Amino acid sequence: MSVSVEVMADEAPFQFLHSEVIEYIYKSADSGEVENGRNITKLENMGLRVGQGLIERLTKDTARFKDELDIMKFICKDFWTCVFKKQIDNLRTNHQGIYVLQDNKFRLLSHLSAGKQYLEHAPKYLAFTCGLVRGALSNLGVKSIVTAEVSVMPACKMHII
Amino acid sequence: MSVSVEVMADEAPFQFLHSEVIEYIYKSADSGEVENGRNITKLENMGLRVGQGLIERLTKDTARFKDELDIMKFICKDFWTCVFKKQIDNLRTNHQGIYVLQDNKFRLLSHLSAGKQYLEHAPKYLAFTCGLVRGALSNLGVKSIVTAEVSVMPACKMHII
Repeated sequence: MSVSVEVMADEAPFQFLHSEVIEYIYKSADSGEVENGRNITKLENMGLRVGQGLIERLTKDTARFKDELDIMKFICKDFWTCVFKKQIDNLRTNHQGIYVLQDNKFRLLSHLSAGKQYLEHAPKYLAFTCGLVRGALSNLGVKSIVTAEVSVMPACKMHII
Repeated sequence: MSVSVEVMADEAPFQFLHSEVIEYIYKSADSGEVENGRNITKLENMGLRVGQGLIERLTKDTARFKDELDIMKFICKDFWTCVFKKQIDNLRTNHQGIYVLQDNKFRLLSHLSAGKQYLEHAPKYLAFTCGLVRGALSNLGVKSIVTAEVSVMPACKMHII
């Protein structure tokens, strides 16, 4: 047997399941603007609970964080690697509670083609992850609003306020 | 920062998402026996599509399989490791198209307690994986019926006919 599992991306089962969840939620709802908003909320809530569960397991044996920036670094490095098998590429902050996390090759978008016509589909591929980050932060005592933005696929910016 | 990501199970994001999917499907349906059956089907269908996508990626550069047993070994070893980060512990066959795959520590059950009172909940934690295996096999040209059985948690037997 000649296999190439070594080059197989570890996050594939998660990615495929994530895609199916979106498919399922959108299929089981009626079409229309209102439903789209509801679907986004459903995906975000699902991400929220996954984020809470994951961060709890990830920080079980972690020393306390010294400040909010320290927490953000943990999200960018350890948390992101756990879920997406890579770190956030760039973290910026105004040092007043606003953070911008940039992932230049966001895994949950990388299966979509790079064409502009796919940009409109981006929000549904980002909702779960917005919830994921918000859930993780909330369990670490940081209340936040998390939004995401895509300008060039598959790069993605998460804004945390 | 003192973290212990090394001991963090790689499959955790997938596990947590899988649990949330079950939760979501069961919550959004009405209660009752019929609905339970429908939910199981929904989970199985979701697993089916994930299995199809995964096996396609996993076997992209794989040499052809010599026979059905060879395919089963691939499922037990490479496919199972990709999803659950461990191999199937035991594969048995009657050499007439029936296979029994045993996982002594099935990851999607390991968060449930070992008590007998949880056995009744086992089917909903197995449905997705039955579909997963069926989807993978179907993409490799093997039509199958896949059922699962739990006698002692968190061990699980998959029957493939």
